[in-house]
Amino acid sequence: MSAVAEPALLQLRRGEERRLRGGHLWVFSNEVDIARTPLTALSPGQAVRIADAGGKILGTGYVNPNTLISARLVDRTAHALDRSLIVHRLNVALSLREKLYAEPYYRLVFGESDGLPGLVLDRFGDLIVGQIATAGMEALRGEIEAAVAKVFGNAALVWKNAGSVRRLEALPEYVDVGIGAHASLARVREGGLDFDIDPVSGQKTGWFFDQHANRDRLASYVRGARVLDVFSYVGAWGIRAAGFGASEVTCVDASKSAVEAVRHNAALNGMADRVAAVEADAFDFLKAARQERKRWDVVILDPPAFVKRKKDFKEGALAYRRINEMAMQVLERDGILVTCSCSHHMARQSLLDAIGAGARHLDRQVQILEQLQQGPDHPVHAAIPETDYLKGFICRVLPA
Amino acid sequence: MSAVAEPALLQLRRGEERRLRGGHLWVFSNEVDIARTPLTALSPGQAVRIADAGGKILGTGYVNPNTLISARLVDRTAHALDRSLIVHRLNVALSLREKLYAEPYYRLVFGESDGLPGLVLDRFGDLIVGQIATAGMEALRGEIEAAVAKVFGNAALVWKNAGSVRRLEALPEYVDVGIGAHASLARVREGGLDFDIDPVSGQKTGWFFDQHANRDRLASYVRGARVLDVFSYVGAWGIRAAGFGASEVTCVDASKSAVEAVRHNAALNGMADRVAAVEADAFDFLKAARQERKRWDVVILDPPAFVKRKKDFKEGALAYRRINEMAMQVLERDGILVTCSCSHHMARQSLLDAIGAGARHLDRQVQILEQLQQGPDHPVHAAIPETDYLKGFICRVLPA
Repeated sequence: MSAVAEPALLQLRRGEERRLRGGHLWVFSNEVDIARTPLTALSPGQAVRIADAGGKILGTGYVNPNTLISARLVDRTAHALDRSLIVHRLNVALSLREKLYAEPYYRLVFGESDGLPGLVLDRFGDLIVGQIATAGMEALRGEIEAAVAKVFGNAALVWKNAGSVRRLEALPEYVDVGIGAHASLARVREGGLDFDIDPVSGQKTGWFFDQHANRDRLASYVRGARVLDVFSYVGAWGIRAAGFGASEVTCVDASKSAVEAVRHNAALNGMADRVAAVEADAFDFLKAARQERKRWDVVILDPPAFVKRKKDFKEGALAYRRINEMAMQVLERDGILVTCSCSHHMARQSLLDAIGAGARHLDRQVQILEQLQQGPDHPVHAAIPETDYLKGFICRVLPA
Repeated sequence: MSAVAEPALLQLRRGEERRLRGGHLWVFSNEVDIARTPLTALSPGQAVRIADAGGKILGTGYVNPNTLISARLVDRTAHALDRSLIVHRLNVALSLREKLYAEPYYRLVFGESDGLPGLVLDRFGDLIVGQIATAGMEALRGEIEAAVAKVFGNAALVWKNAGSVRRLEALPEYVDVGIGAHASLARVREGGLDFDIDPVSGQKTGWFFDQHANRDRLASYVRGARVLDVFSYVGAWGIRAAGFGASEVTCVDASKSAVEAVRHNAALNGMADRVAAVEADAFDFLKAARQERKRWDVVILDPPAFVKRKKDFKEGALAYRRINEMAMQVLERDGILVTCSCSHHMARQSLLDAIGAGARHLDRQVQILEQLQQGPDHPVHAAIPETDYLKGFICRVLPA
């Protein structure tokens, strides 16, 4: 194949171009006209031109014949999937983040929402940590590295290519240096505080930027307060609360390394005297605290996704209800509950229902003061509901 | 009736206590056991004890036999509806607002959500502007005034008792001094800026506190930008944008007095050179601007409710779609659209659908950067969906 050869064609069945025309970027396997363009003839990650049943080209994208989402549209002008396209997308993404943030700590690219399906890039100053979720993006790894080098000059890029989503695409899991020198530790600044994180051994890219704006909201609620941060990970919520003047913070996490990171970060910000870290299962900790009649003015619940797949909804929803009810039981009268879910399959209303069920059982009344969501560096693509995953509420819990 | 006589009984039909037990406060007329406790025997606004079919008292409330919502529960401990109960509720409401706001400008009481169904109190420093929506609260007017005087000492209270909701309850519309001296003008401070408003002749209580936190969000998007504020009313959005460094602001409103107020408030903050006000219908203005190829970096749409009643949904949703599409047509490339709906019957998803339909028609892609909601001084009662009404989005509008 010469360098200028057109990518292979992927033709859709009649009417199946509707989702793409509506703004979405995904093609499911049953929407492909496999008689005309057999998926089996294409290799995972291969670039394609996507056409409707009449042959009209809808744009360029990439395929994976082995997954339910068999193709993702990348560009509607049918531009080649190359470095220049990625440089353009990076610049469009960067211009938004530079408007939003005074300092270079944010999610730089959020997959589909930033026009780069399957790619996540988190920026920690001069270190960029990337995650590739699809074979199509994996095939573009070299182009992405070249594009990052072009846009950011002397930045380093580390690939943290891990997680269940890669197994779906039959991609290997690995950590590797993309460009620059390997950095095993990174520092992030948020709200004037410093946090040391570990992009390689930590969760995801090492830091949850999606809650940054929500953590900012603590300012109104924690001054002089006793705060409990459940599922604290490296202490972002709890330490931010201390930064806003909480008198006493307890962070709880089941991971020993997370608890150590909380202590390290508390000390880093001169808060070791006000921030304690406890290694414990969240449910066990809350149960014991209730029995010991411990109470906090503010309780923060930022659990991992309890509903990872749609079929786990019932069980997961029950877990949200239980944990929220347990949190209310250790709240002072008229206390503040900050409660979140990062499960796409746990709708905002379902989380509200879980809170309401817990409150009714305890004979409490809940005022929803603020609704939380993923930050603006994780934009929701208006036509792709799957890009909307984080929701939460700041509640005041009153006697009924 | 002696002073200590118990209020009349209102008994529910079998099973109809479920909504109240779930945390809601409303009783619909078809839920009352009118054989045992005829609604026709009760007078509008009369206090009642509400009981389930078995005679168990659920609490105290008030009735209006002439409305669809025939009773509202006020207290579950069956406390009398008197000054001491209102003082308690005011203090619980005040403690939240004092935590949230450094200055005394906010909605102090938001009806059902603050345990005082049918009552709204907005605070402008020492002036409180009240709105009563139900016959039950109207009957308590004297007790409310006494409670406000007790909690706030030398505050003035002006009743702005107007609007279609009062006609439903067959209440007269009037403006009256409750306590203190009559103030025909009020000043509100928001984000370090001053606004003169007219609680008597203006819309509602004269100021929309519910958008305060959303206007704060403009900070990230308007520096150096050309901003269009459509349905500007007295200029709160536009002038806040100028305060955050917008280079040029155009406010559009169909009301002559609103346009004059914009000019007054812009001058009050030394921004007359950067804030222009145009008296025009929003649709006409946007149509003409498109024809003249005018463009803005940021367009703000904060229209009055297009869907006032459920049956107006289809027509109203179309109006939201039209106005959003027209706004996108006057946006610069990659521009920011701030778009809201204060219609309870226009769900968040419906507004998103309206934006999406407009975008598709224009071949644009929309990134939802932030979801907006009513501020925390308008808490949503978790068990009363009707208290959730304001929604909005901050979007970036890109080429498809």
